[in-house]
Amino acid sequence: MAKQFVYDDDGDEITAWAESEAEAVENARSELDAAGVDLSDDEVRDRIRVIPSPQRIKSSAEEVLMDKRRRGGIEAAEVVESGMDVGLGTGSTTAWAIAAIGWKLDSGELEDVRGVATSLQSHDLARELGIPLTDVDGFDGLDVAIDGADQWDPENPHVVKGGGASHAREKLVDSMADRLVVATDDEKRSTPLSYPVPLSVLPESRNVAQRWVREMGGEPQLRYAEQKDGPLFTANGNVIVDCDFGEMDDIEGRATELARVPGAQEHGLFVDMVDSVVYGTDDGVDHVEF
Amino acid sequence: MAKQFVYDDDGDEITAWAESEAEAVENARSELDAAGVDLSDDEVRDRIRVIPSPQRIKSSAEEVLMDKRRRGGIEAAEVVESGMDVGLGTGSTTAWAIAAIGWKLDSGELEDVRGVATSLQSHDLARELGIPLTDVDGFDGLDVAIDGADQWDPENPHVVKGGGASHAREKLVDSMADRLVVATDDEKRSTPLSYPVPLSVLPESRNVAQRWVREMGGEPQLRYAEQKDGPLFTANGNVIVDCDFGEMDDIEGRATELARVPGAQEHGLFVDMVDSVVYGTDDGVDHVEF
Repeated sequence: MAKQFVYDDDGDEITAWAESEAEAVENARSELDAAGVDLSDDEVRDRIRVIPSPQRIKSSAEEVLMDKRRRGGIEAAEVVESGMDVGLGTGSTTAWAIAAIGWKLDSGELEDVRGVATSLQSHDLARELGIPLTDVDGFDGLDVAIDGADQWDPENPHVVKGGGASHAREKLVDSMADRLVVATDDEKRSTPLSYPVPLSVLPESRNVAQRWVREMGGEPQLRYAEQKDGPLFTANGNVIVDCDFGEMDDIEGRATELARVPGAQEHGLFVDMVDSVVYGTDDGVDHVEF
Repeated sequence: MAKQFVYDDDGDEITAWAESEAEAVENARSELDAAGVDLSDDEVRDRIRVIPSPQRIKSSAEEVLMDKRRRGGIEAAEVVESGMDVGLGTGSTTAWAIAAIGWKLDSGELEDVRGVATSLQSHDLARELGIPLTDVDGFDGLDVAIDGADQWDPENPHVVKGGGASHAREKLVDSMADRLVVATDDEKRSTPLSYPVPLSVLPESRNVAQRWVREMGGEPQLRYAEQKDGPLFTANGNVIVDCDFGEMDDIEGRATELARVPGAQEHGLFVDMVDSVVYGTDDGVDHVEF
């Protein structure tokens, strides 16, 4: 339920945010006082909008609120047109795309958009923003999906996903879309891809899966939780083995091998699925089209 | 797979530990060198044993390896006799009880003990220690269960559990035991209990459950993960709402209310279940019997 206050003070932006509206108002008040700007309570509340909640995303508040992620996400939302059915991905950049879609529906710039969320947290964010939501079952296809990446390759239409542990539902939703737009930033760029590939597996498969990954030449690591004892669990009751292969020159081969691990449910390699990448940089936003 | 090296140097203990055996040997070598003790590789390896792995328990390494937790857990294992079927709880103190049972089976001090684990991580620890394990289905009852607590009450046989998110399976196993021994430390003691009660609920119930808890006068908080985006999930596919009621004078009433929340699967109040508490202190170990 994070909220942000934004006010244009003759070209200077005054902003404040908090996880709750009450605290956001309070923080806005002290920023306004410091700048010597006098606004009524109603004027403050009118300028408060829903933004991605750092509490719900594993990246720290600093990363979620990073300018380049915000810019990349908001720019990615430009692909959405009135009447479209849209897949709503998961992660710190994508959350800004969802926010931008909500703001546009609110202002009337967009109409008749329906969203399909890839995770509980994207669902909750979209709901707070008033984006009409429906189940993946309700569609044969989607017009577009906007999703993030843990690493992307400017030379190939592949990404590694799953750092946020939502890659199974993301792959389902993204695969249904006519077009997949990856919203990300320049720091996650790499050729070839080398990010440890998250592999969700049945809990009973956790040890066997690690043996198989070792035999493939990878370094497996069962992901442990920090807010519970023991392994991290996904929304689908699986555990995650992060598989470090170093630089991956043969992505298709890796994807095939990982899919064959006993008990494997889904891996984080999205091969030949990306249509565009919209990425924030220190100066602005850039695009790659495939 | 954490390993510890222990050597008695004329009354002074030289210890070293690491998550892997190879590193534990290396760390032992540097401690021995510093103390001017010369041991062969075989002598070093002979003195290495399996200990609880801080990586697998949400408490930090410092807390898992805390003297008072180690002492409390090892003392609690004294209730286990040869031939017993034992429930193996979850958490930083209980893990030391499991370790102690394993060491005693290894040395021959105990024989013919069978364990039932309350979580994947207790299962993995017991397996590394060579404790024969079986499913909860294999038993009508258990002789004893050793389990931890997030808070315990020296005046009443109740505890709050579920900080580690394993309270559902723990309650099942603990309830089957003729005797429940709580292994804990003096810092977790409180009369009355006031620890926020973990309530595991269906993911779809997360918002309804929080409304009900607010109506009961509690302050609910959906628990978020740190190693994935979005809510933390339990081994059973539930999410957790931590319900802060402040001081709880009517534990039975709270337990009844929490059990009635729509979508609730299990709460962390263990009412009238505790037979003994074994708790580590700065000076040693104390007991409370109910």
